[in-house]
Amino acid sequence: MTQTTTLTITALQERVEAIFLKGGLNAVQAGAISRVIVAGERDACKSHGIYRIEGALRTVKAGKVNPDAVPELLPQENSAIVKVNAKGGFANPAFELGLPVLADRARSCGLAALVINDCTHFSALWPEVEGVTDQGLAALVMCPSYSTVAPAGGNKPLLGTNPFAFGWPRTGNPPYVFDFATSVAARGEIELHRRAGKQLPEGWAIDAEGNPTTDPDAALAGAMLPFGSHKGSAIGTMIELLAGIMIGDLTSPEVLDYLGTTTLAPFHGELIIAFSPEAFAAGRPGNPFARAEVLFEAIVGQGARLPSQRRFVARRKSETEGVTLTAAEIEQLDRLLALGLDAVA
Amino acid sequence: MTQTTTLTITALQERVEAIFLKGGLNAVQAGAISRVIVAGERDACKSHGIYRIEGALRTVKAGKVNPDAVPELLPQENSAIVKVNAKGGFANPAFELGLPVLADRARSCGLAALVINDCTHFSALWPEVEGVTDQGLAALVMCPSYSTVAPAGGNKPLLGTNPFAFGWPRTGNPPYVFDFATSVAARGEIELHRRAGKQLPEGWAIDAEGNPTTDPDAALAGAMLPFGSHKGSAIGTMIELLAGIMIGDLTSPEVLDYLGTTTLAPFHGELIIAFSPEAFAAGRPGNPFARAEVLFEAIVGQGARLPSQRRFVARRKSETEGVTLTAAEIEQLDRLLALGLDAVA
Repeated sequence: MTQTTTLTITALQERVEAIFLKGGLNAVQAGAISRVIVAGERDACKSHGIYRIEGALRTVKAGKVNPDAVPELLPQENSAIVKVNAKGGFANPAFELGLPVLADRARSCGLAALVINDCTHFSALWPEVEGVTDQGLAALVMCPSYSTVAPAGGNKPLLGTNPFAFGWPRTGNPPYVFDFATSVAARGEIELHRRAGKQLPEGWAIDAEGNPTTDPDAALAGAMLPFGSHKGSAIGTMIELLAGIMIGDLTSPEVLDYLGTTTLAPFHGELIIAFSPEAFAAGRPGNPFARAEVLFEAIVGQGARLPSQRRFVARRKSETEGVTLTAAEIEQLDRLLALGLDAVA
Repeated sequence: MTQTTTLTITALQERVEAIFLKGGLNAVQAGAISRVIVAGERDACKSHGIYRIEGALRTVKAGKVNPDAVPELLPQENSAIVKVNAKGGFANPAFELGLPVLADRARSCGLAALVINDCTHFSALWPEVEGVTDQGLAALVMCPSYSTVAPAGGNKPLLGTNPFAFGWPRTGNPPYVFDFATSVAARGEIELHRRAGKQLPEGWAIDAEGNPTTDPDAALAGAMLPFGSHKGSAIGTMIELLAGIMIGDLTSPEVLDYLGTTTLAPFHGELIIAFSPEAFAAGRPGNPFARAEVLFEAIVGQGARLPSQRRFVARRKSETEGVTLTAAEIEQLDRLLALGLDAVA
């Protein structure tokens, strides 16, 4: 029998926050980053849960993120753009600072954009998406990553896995949310195949010579492929343009140049666009939220699933029953709390 | 030897416009729709060229588009939303009316959205994208279609082929533009396979029972599949939400209910989002347009292609040498001009 420990979400939040404080993060950084990590663990999204603490601390230790950063809201009068400078810290406190202003602007202008600059991005995008949908607004969120993906027809890493995420608010239900890499697979999935000694499915990657490969080592030395061939490649390129270049922040090749590795969390910017369905639908027939439910029912009614449902089921369970961690996970949390940055290479 | 006729772009524009005037369209409708059809022909994008005239006239004859419509710009004070009601006419004159206002708002607000309601959409989206990039702005454009695509995991048509298009302005070069269906293939490609008696590639479609099929007839009676599996399905759903429901216009299932057929041009709305790279990048290092060129060079430098290049090559040729049509095409233009709506079923 494996021993496990069940913690309430609040207790887990306190424990993770204490680790980051011990690791030298200030309160605003530690609080915000803990919230997204605990949200990942709560949603049984293990790849973005407490497993990520170590990578965050490693990035701090490497001097690639400012643990003392206090994000700054930059005034933009009469604009639908809200800019927050993360001051070299994590993206998450910058998002928390900008969100209420973004929501206000989206309600008054109909749509608005939150630009986060000079941040280390370090989580899935769905926490940002859900922050916006919690305000009754629709959200489109994207950011670059580091060069690991070849453009369609190319043979070398250039684009990032560039996540693309969207959300639509629902009353009485968790939002409609998707959040996916614009590569066929996430880099972590290739790493998992490597560790398990398994070949990759065809179409995931090319080797360093640009030839198709199913060997994880060759893939990691080569490049991943965009999802949906030239279509995913085009969307990945759009993300470099809008959420890198347009917002005056790094593109995926520039991030890789800056970090020199893909083992640290990437430093770049992020673009969050919020839409007010009420403002857009004003004066038109039908309630947009009620109409969206008809669409969702039609999708579910033919046996298809809405994205993120597995996360929402896990969330409901965690909220009532708490989050269960293995003995090894608890031990790791204890070790990180005791040693802080000394626990990581 | 096949006889061909070469016309200047202006001469072709006059000829197509005369056909639509003969078909009963007012000057604003005939002018705008002719411009996008001639642009398609000019760019050797035959599927959106003069071939489309007949479908447009058929939609007029079926009473599903108002040939006399004069689009109306609806006042939206202090908003980043610009609304144009197409009044039941084609989308194209509504776009032409809204574009200058959209560009002004995007420059002053940083980003803005043009909503076109109550229109028949009837062309590729790249003409709209290029209208926006011609203003030095980036563009994101989408619209629903009619239910022909099953959501990933589903077994019946629900989503449309919902095109998704983007553009980034370039100085001294045609813009970076992509414009694609969120289905694996366009419906027209399935039709072409059917006519040629060819099987479809695997993964394009399912039959009426929801089973994979490579038979074009079974596919047309069944459903097309979204590109990139659940990712393309999610983007197609997002387009229903943003460019159908949010803007208070029809979704793809509602369009099919309204028309009762997929042989007429779809009636719905359209969403065009414009971004000012200058406003977004203000105060940040680097010129966004110069930085984008570095990205494009890196893509092209590894042997990958930028989207739309084939169109731009054809455009340059047409601009200097004119547009060459076959004898059958000229004959069809003459027939349409002579008979107007009597030429179509």
